[in-house]
Amino acid sequence: MEKQFHPNISVDCVIFGFDFKKLNVILVERNVHDPVNGAKQISDLTLTGNHVYFDEKLEDAAKRILFNLTGLSGIYLEQFFTTGDPERLKSVKDQVWLQKIGKDPRERVVSVCYFSLLNCDEITLKMGNRKIGWYSVKEAKNLAFDHGTILGNAIKALQTKLLYEPIGFEMLPEKFTLTQLQKLYEVVFDVEFDKRNFRKKVSKMNYLVPLDEKQKGVSHKPARYYTFSRELYEKNSSAMFNFSI
Amino acid sequence: MEKQFHPNISVDCVIFGFDFKKLNVILVERNVHDPVNGAKQISDLTLTGNHVYFDEKLEDAAKRILFNLTGLSGIYLEQFFTTGDPERLKSVKDQVWLQKIGKDPRERVVSVCYFSLLNCDEITLKMGNRKIGWYSVKEAKNLAFDHGTILGNAIKALQTKLLYEPIGFEMLPEKFTLTQLQKLYEVVFDVEFDKRNFRKKVSKMNYLVPLDEKQKGVSHKPARYYTFSRELYEKNSSAMFNFSI
Repeated sequence: MEKQFHPNISVDCVIFGFDFKKLNVILVERNVHDPVNGAKQISDLTLTGNHVYFDEKLEDAAKRILFNLTGLSGIYLEQFFTTGDPERLKSVKDQVWLQKIGKDPRERVVSVCYFSLLNCDEITLKMGNRKIGWYSVKEAKNLAFDHGTILGNAIKALQTKLLYEPIGFEMLPEKFTLTQLQKLYEVVFDVEFDKRNFRKKVSKMNYLVPLDEKQKGVSHKPARYYTFSRELYEKNSSAMFNFSI
Repeated sequence: MEKQFHPNISVDCVIFGFDFKKLNVILVERNVHDPVNGAKQISDLTLTGNHVYFDEKLEDAAKRILFNLTGLSGIYLEQFFTTGDPERLKSVKDQVWLQKIGKDPRERVVSVCYFSLLNCDEITLKMGNRKIGWYSVKEAKNLAFDHGTILGNAIKALQTKLLYEPIGFEMLPEKFTLTQLQKLYEVVFDVEFDKRNFRKKVSKMNYLVPLDEKQKGVSHKPARYYTFSRELYEKNSSAMFNFSI
């Protein structure tokens, strides 16, 4: 029995974005032969990912994927999970696809997963010939491989991190209203917050700075803009010990 | 240029334990040739780990390591980090050791890391010929490979998790005093808590059940014993939305 194995190593990126209405994720269309009717082409969706190069750090592979996709570096990036079950690429559809693109379908692939945060509006996506786009996380069903599980874990990791670090600002423009901030928390946790309770929580975020500027050209009463101050946050961030269990 | 690579996959386990005084971790002694004087044997310490078998799930490899070490299954286990930098095994000492045990020292090793929680007192460790034992995390310096970094990340992961889930009870006996519970939080976060403030926090843990039993044979005033009720915790655990940012 061959006890050890040498798998392929890849990196998958779960790239979240917020468009003031819902939580979105970047997915790529994959064309694949219908396992029932081989002549028929069907398509499904995958996360963005790639293999890790020889001599490349795992995190650098994730940064390369993000850069190729957006042209940007310095995007928020966090490793949250590694998947490597022997069965993860064993569905008929995935096996057919692996063969088609010239991979050994028996090969095991271990994938180190990262999540990233972007402001949907400020990004132009590019990815050669493949169709790519933002999808609501609620509509991201029946993903290829085990990408549905990876996405589910990424959402949990994002929620958890948001409980003790204000990383949500990575998905907002520089200035935003409190209503927009509340909506961000609501779509990440998939709950509705009472406005008064939310404002009470917000009033304790001493790194949230009100600006001398209000919305323009809106039909309702224009709301004040706020901004996130990393400096103030870092000055006051002994929050780690403020455990709430 | 060979762009893809097929590394060795291993699992490393950071096994934490609490002995009522400090936070401990299980380490294994490694005998290695002194890179300066090859005739001389020196020893250092590593985390417990092993390679992943062909057809074995990553988590099952971690469970196997824990079972072989303690004879127990069902130990608290959590994946927190994967390390795979090309340079992580490239120190002279590690290269000499890899060669000695018959591994290809040029091979890259990706390691999926888990942390586990044990009650030190209730475990008998076994590991064949190799010396193994509990070490205070504060004294765990100059570990082999990048195991110092892994241990540092594990401590951060444990602290973070403890902020929103009462996993500390995994390291306590079934009944414990509030002073013991406070000490547990203090050694994990490496801070001292004010007794009154800590008791105030504790009074909100409605899953902490006072028992009709007190310490016996102690020189000070005997303290009441408490126990952790998983049932009560799970009934009330909408704490996820109680974010404290």
